[in-house]
Amino acid sequence: MQTFTFQFPTQLHIGEGIRRQLGQIAAPYGKKAFIALDPFLKGTQTEKELIEDLSQYGISTVVFSDIVPNPRHTSIDEGAEQCRQEGCELVIAIGGGSAIDTAKAIALTAKWGGKCWDYTERQGENVRRPQGPGLPLIAIPTTAGTGTEATQFAVINNPEQVRKCTIITPYLYHKIAMIDPELMQTIPPQLTALTGIDTFAHAFEAYICKGHNSFSDALALHAMELFARSIRQAVHNGRDLGARSQMALSCTLAGAAFSNAGVCLPHAMGQPLSAFTDAPHGGTLAACIPQVIAWTIPYAEDRFAKVAEILNGPMVSHMTTSEKAAALPEILASLYQDLDVHVSFSGYGLQEKDVDAFVDLCFTAYKQDMDAHPKPVTRDDVYALVHQCMADGEGGAK
Amino acid sequence: MQTFTFQFPTQLHIGEGIRRQLGQIAAPYGKKAFIALDPFLKGTQTEKELIEDLSQYGISTVVFSDIVPNPRHTSIDEGAEQCRQEGCELVIAIGGGSAIDTAKAIALTAKWGGKCWDYTERQGENVRRPQGPGLPLIAIPTTAGTGTEATQFAVINNPEQVRKCTIITPYLYHKIAMIDPELMQTIPPQLTALTGIDTFAHAFEAYICKGHNSFSDALALHAMELFARSIRQAVHNGRDLGARSQMALSCTLAGAAFSNAGVCLPHAMGQPLSAFTDAPHGGTLAACIPQVIAWTIPYAEDRFAKVAEILNGPMVSHMTTSEKAAALPEILASLYQDLDVHVSFSGYGLQEKDVDAFVDLCFTAYKQDMDAHPKPVTRDDVYALVHQCMADGEGGAK
Repeated sequence: MQTFTFQFPTQLHIGEGIRRQLGQIAAPYGKKAFIALDPFLKGTQTEKELIEDLSQYGISTVVFSDIVPNPRHTSIDEGAEQCRQEGCELVIAIGGGSAIDTAKAIALTAKWGGKCWDYTERQGENVRRPQGPGLPLIAIPTTAGTGTEATQFAVINNPEQVRKCTIITPYLYHKIAMIDPELMQTIPPQLTALTGIDTFAHAFEAYICKGHNSFSDALALHAMELFARSIRQAVHNGRDLGARSQMALSCTLAGAAFSNAGVCLPHAMGQPLSAFTDAPHGGTLAACIPQVIAWTIPYAEDRFAKVAEILNGPMVSHMTTSEKAAALPEILASLYQDLDVHVSFSGYGLQEKDVDAFVDLCFTAYKQDMDAHPKPVTRDDVYALVHQCMADGEGGAK
Repeated sequence: MQTFTFQFPTQLHIGEGIRRQLGQIAAPYGKKAFIALDPFLKGTQTEKELIEDLSQYGISTVVFSDIVPNPRHTSIDEGAEQCRQEGCELVIAIGGGSAIDTAKAIALTAKWGGKCWDYTERQGENVRRPQGPGLPLIAIPTTAGTGTEATQFAVINNPEQVRKCTIITPYLYHKIAMIDPELMQTIPPQLTALTGIDTFAHAFEAYICKGHNSFSDALALHAMELFARSIRQAVHNGRDLGARSQMALSCTLAGAAFSNAGVCLPHAMGQPLSAFTDAPHGGTLAACIPQVIAWTIPYAEDRFAKVAEILNGPMVSHMTTSEKAAALPEILASLYQDLDVHVSFSGYGLQEKDVDAFVDLCFTAYKQDMDAHPKPVTRDDVYALVHQCMADGEGGAK
């Protein structure tokens, strides 16, 4: 048995309408909250109710909404400065993965100083390490995708450097995550599909990567089962609260899994694609997972076979393990059809002239994910895979 | 979706030989450790090495070994007093479930005062509630059974009152649990079997009880899979480190599951049996689970069917859900045969004259478990089940 550690210190509160307990749950953590609010919630009833609820528990608020998909280092640094100057004692994120990652980086930077980019993992460069937790964090996610409410990661985009890098520290775990599927009913189908594939990718990569362990396996397998059961319904009938609940649970389970196990090649290729094209994270993963699987077989064959069983049990029930693993890319292709997902690296705008720099970024910012892949990966491999992902498909829909 | 919370703040360190990192891992928590040492380890090389390692990291130790199976309130109170007087800053348990439960209750009582019994759940009586965490706890379990290194429970026996009751508070979670399967290689077969069934019971009851949720399900299902894969080998070839590792993981996964989901009728009947007879906990569960299942069907039929699949997939693969559920008691009976487990309530010494008081205890100390059972339970039901569990089997082997 490989030696491993497992931790998941975040306390989860899960249920329809659970967001209405925010004030009560936040009260022990301070009297002034910095709110990282997803811009789509500005001026909504949801914002109003949550801030009113906090106020009833004696918590005043500073609202910050300079948040974009693939959150930028400059806006995080401005947020951290504002958080410090206002003397906020806790940080609450309400929104999608970008709002939550923004909040995580702000909570750390406001407490420990410097610039948020200093804390990101960059192979071969100096990385600043926090000496303890940042400000206490509470998250209310509004998408079922990144699982960042359950991880020790925050991903930051640096458009000036065309780099997207990750802060990795257990000090980024939330104190509390409040998962309320009611908030997810209005997510449009395409965003539901792409964030859903992000969830699947977290569970799938946690399950196949070298860092997997019994605890992460337990969480990842269950996350994939819930995903398989509910993603089609969540995409095509977003008001179905049962399907939304299952996807929300899948997302958080997958987050806890990959926060402990890590991810591998799909993330190492997907993150750089966002850095070069600002493509949505889920889409970048969708655009390379089938290709990565086909290239990886026969490594991790047993695990690919298990995933094939979870995604389409009846189709593979009479196959051998090898056949099941081999069927997985096709099973995913058929799922993409059902979800109306048609994406490719070229569709997202990656250009031939950028491929060398792209591969460089894979091996610097995402070296730990490369190293965790079940099959050894060379520069030539990634070079070939990127070209295949550029050639495949024509869509690039967001 | 039912509203639920999930938390598992214990940091796990898992691996062969991981115990040798105790000093390094304990160092941040204090300079003087109170060690609850299982008596079977007194004077062993294991004790010597662990204490030496702590000393190398500047941690002095007070060793306490007045620990019996079904730990007694009086010895816990003495330990707490000693811990306070010696000014220990952290509590480390090394041993089986009794040593760990002893340590948990001592850490709480030493910090918050009073008697440990005051903190136990007793329906209709005053229960003292701690105002915060006790002393920091570290556990090194030497059996794969109770999972108490991963739970918010400590079970305490009060022989004067013939009652066994439970402290339930998140302040009982360990800071650290170090799971080292090497320590489990010398557990004798019968103890391996009974503690293994305890592990199964935790996962099984967490999975079927009303308090189950997606997180506890994920952990419980994986715990049962590991159990099914490895229990026979762990019992019959204890030196098999692979099987021991899988059972150790199963145990901790199951602990995290039932700490969040709760348990139900088997524990509500098993715990009182220990109070009346001092029977080992795993044995008390083994002696009533098949009977409880047979009585509970058709409630929770889907879940019983899933457990049957996990325990014996080939046998049930062509059955309907109802047939699978109905087969579960027989599958367990056959497993008991394989593990050489032959236990019954009468074999453990429960007498007819005690049955009324026994049923009383079920409904006072274990009311929360009764209420969590998927089928409503009356006094008459328990009365009948106890008699059935007394009649069945003749063994009572420890």
